[in-house]
Amino acid sequence: MSRFTAIDTYDVRFPTSRELDGSDAMNPDPDYSAAYLILRTDDPDGLAGHGLVFTIGRGNDVQTAAISALSHLVLGRDVDAVLDDLGAFARSLTDDSQLRWLGPEKGVMHMAIGGVINAAWDMAARRAGKPLWRFIADMTPEQLVRTIDFRYLSDALTPEQALELLRAAEPGKAQRVAALLQEGYPAYTTSPGWLGYSDEKLTRLAREAVAEGFRTIKLKVGLSVEDDIRRCGLAREAIGPDVAMAVDANQRWDVGPAIAWMKQLAQFDIAWIEEPTSPDDVLGHAAIRRGIAPVPVSTGEHTQNRVVFKQLLQAQAVDLIQIDAARVGGVNENLAILLLAAKFGVRVFPHAGGVGLCELVQHLAMADFVAISGSKEDRAIEFVDHLHEHFVDPVRIRHGRYLAPEQPGFSAEMHVDSVRQHLYPAGPVWSGEVPAVASDGLSAQAAG
Amino acid sequence: MSRFTAIDTYDVRFPTSRELDGSDAMNPDPDYSAAYLILRTDDPDGLAGHGLVFTIGRGNDVQTAAISALSHLVLGRDVDAVLDDLGAFARSLTDDSQLRWLGPEKGVMHMAIGGVINAAWDMAARRAGKPLWRFIADMTPEQLVRTIDFRYLSDALTPEQALELLRAAEPGKAQRVAALLQEGYPAYTTSPGWLGYSDEKLTRLAREAVAEGFRTIKLKVGLSVEDDIRRCGLAREAIGPDVAMAVDANQRWDVGPAIAWMKQLAQFDIAWIEEPTSPDDVLGHAAIRRGIAPVPVSTGEHTQNRVVFKQLLQAQAVDLIQIDAARVGGVNENLAILLLAAKFGVRVFPHAGGVGLCELVQHLAMADFVAISGSKEDRAIEFVDHLHEHFVDPVRIRHGRYLAPEQPGFSAEMHVDSVRQHLYPAGPVWSGEVPAVASDGLSAQAAG
Repeated sequence: MSRFTAIDTYDVRFPTSRELDGSDAMNPDPDYSAAYLILRTDDPDGLAGHGLVFTIGRGNDVQTAAISALSHLVLGRDVDAVLDDLGAFARSLTDDSQLRWLGPEKGVMHMAIGGVINAAWDMAARRAGKPLWRFIADMTPEQLVRTIDFRYLSDALTPEQALELLRAAEPGKAQRVAALLQEGYPAYTTSPGWLGYSDEKLTRLAREAVAEGFRTIKLKVGLSVEDDIRRCGLAREAIGPDVAMAVDANQRWDVGPAIAWMKQLAQFDIAWIEEPTSPDDVLGHAAIRRGIAPVPVSTGEHTQNRVVFKQLLQAQAVDLIQIDAARVGGVNENLAILLLAAKFGVRVFPHAGGVGLCELVQHLAMADFVAISGSKEDRAIEFVDHLHEHFVDPVRIRHGRYLAPEQPGFSAEMHVDSVRQHLYPAGPVWSGEVPAVASDGLSAQAAG
Repeated sequence: MSRFTAIDTYDVRFPTSRELDGSDAMNPDPDYSAAYLILRTDDPDGLAGHGLVFTIGRGNDVQTAAISALSHLVLGRDVDAVLDDLGAFARSLTDDSQLRWLGPEKGVMHMAIGGVINAAWDMAARRAGKPLWRFIADMTPEQLVRTIDFRYLSDALTPEQALELLRAAEPGKAQRVAALLQEGYPAYTTSPGWLGYSDEKLTRLAREAVAEGFRTIKLKVGLSVEDDIRRCGLAREAIGPDVAMAVDANQRWDVGPAIAWMKQLAQFDIAWIEEPTSPDDVLGHAAIRRGIAPVPVSTGEHTQNRVVFKQLLQAQAVDLIQIDAARVGGVNENLAILLLAAKFGVRVFPHAGGVGLCELVQHLAMADFVAISGSKEDRAIEFVDHLHEHFVDPVRIRHGRYLAPEQPGFSAEMHVDSVRQHLYPAGPVWSGEVPAVASDGLSAQAAG
């Protein structure tokens, strides 16, 4: 019998602010970062699980401290027992009666919980020798439902209703797996649209995106309406009328200003306005949606948990949602959110970019296609061409589509040397010095 | 000119789980704790500000790490400039573009921000030689409005509307100050109602509460409906028909079960059901309220920020709200919430108990009475008779009422020896050993 022996954490930061990559109306100078963790076991074959929480720089140390604070719930537990009942494992983390006060189920503590849960799913998929999307897709409806915490959902989705949805998706699974392996899953790109880029760079990247096969691009907006009108016009001209163009305000506006601003951009045939206001404001999103119809409204990358997603759907506040692999309580909670979206008939455009978010979330979108919604051509996964070289199993994009991962696990594992180089603050990228590293690989960094 | 020189943090924990004080349906064994902080300056008179974030044990180290992560936004700044514009100071903390990713404005990071902001208000009130409630009450409407961040509120409350409310409360301020000093502010007590207590202890404490002058008591519910019916019956018998009795489920239920459960308790003339479900579920609270009318519904101690409070009021989801001094982004955000409550005509019953929450929140309720709502006889501040001996300026309760604090500041300062004894994990209460302490008082403990 193997047991969990450690949660090693690493404060890994990339100095992206030097290039203004990732700049938007609320995040002018992000240093894309990962509170990276490796779940260790005493398994003789070295079975381990990898996970990460994405942050944009400062506070990545707080995030690693929060991950370490979960150790008492993990260390010493029987690996097989945990991996065979990932629902119970996830609940044991979210239900810690004292840690719960720090959320519940939101912010730093919830993201830490999600990182550890995701590492356990990575380990379970590796143990099964499957990429995570396939590991999920191969579960029976009953197994999948057992991973989900329906607390606070039953007024919108019961376990019985979830089972019905999953059983209805059973026929055709094998064909969808084959289609996925052959065609991949549609991607859309945000690379042209960062606020810090010049008009020339925006136009050039937008043209290149279409040439590469992308059918949707996204622009950041929200700092100046005149600039946004000009940039949307340039982008629309560059991509032509048949490629979709979304815009993203990153929570910049109040309800009234969101409506006024978007009425000025509607002329450019907007695929959706993303995060027009506070991610906590369900009723605000509903008011904005009514105010700018038929322009579609979306949110989700900062939506803290399934309870807020439930309300966005109940209130008809959104036309589509983003999910994020590293914001909520791990795979389990994202499965709940995907089931809610299926129940309400709302499309999912997963949030990605950052560090490792593309690597992670592709698995969830593909599992959704095979086992839950059964649909992929009316949706797409965000793609930003950043930092993939640091991952052992990086995303592969061909003609604007994500190819299905083939290696076992959740694709979260980073190269040892990438971690070593970017450790904050002691790694060479930050200090100029070479840190001491254990000869057998990564030495655990003390959190904080 | 004085400058900020340090944010010293202390992980202070009280072993309350040994007595089952504070036990409820979701928190069976809390160790009431404070991520305590002292904002230091180089002021020649030793001006300092005290603040704390309340937690219930594990994770208090994560909370202190989050407070320390704010140092770059505070250290080196001009003390007078900060204290003269506490609105700008608060926004500089909530708007840190990188830290914002960890919330925004929720959970660990937001509570840390609130703790630091509260310490700055403590310092400002000390500098003015006034207790905080009086310091706030003596601000002009314009000064008070300038402390508030109206972002995401303008669809419910604009600065102009807030000014109108405050100006309407100007007449009679002096009389209300006099009334407060003479009569105090009503309290209600939760001391009898913890779930871990025996029927005998519940009955005895309920009788004692009435004898001491309390006009409202509160019972924890939610583990077993049969137990709750028996305990509510015993309590109602003990207090008689004229004393109000509230119940608190601490987020135990989904929407349907909340309605079914409360229909069985309605016979006991319930003053309000508190936290029937997830604190994030605005629409759920609205559904419960419709389902159990006319039993009043309340929530707020876990409500993460002003955006969720706004929606609770917009959706008519609550009959009254709790505010908590250490959950949201400090005094500024609580002033916004008090103004929202006044605008929507909803009463406020501040959450207290824990460690220092009574000491803090009394100031907000009293400032509300003097300068905002103008009302106090139809509301009350929670009181739990725990751990007050650790504070330099503890609450004073007479005949079921809080007496107005008289010492300058926010009453958050703890006795040096209390901090020293309860430092986790090195303090004698936890280790049995005597820790090293600097001879001039408290030595700063490294966060984490």
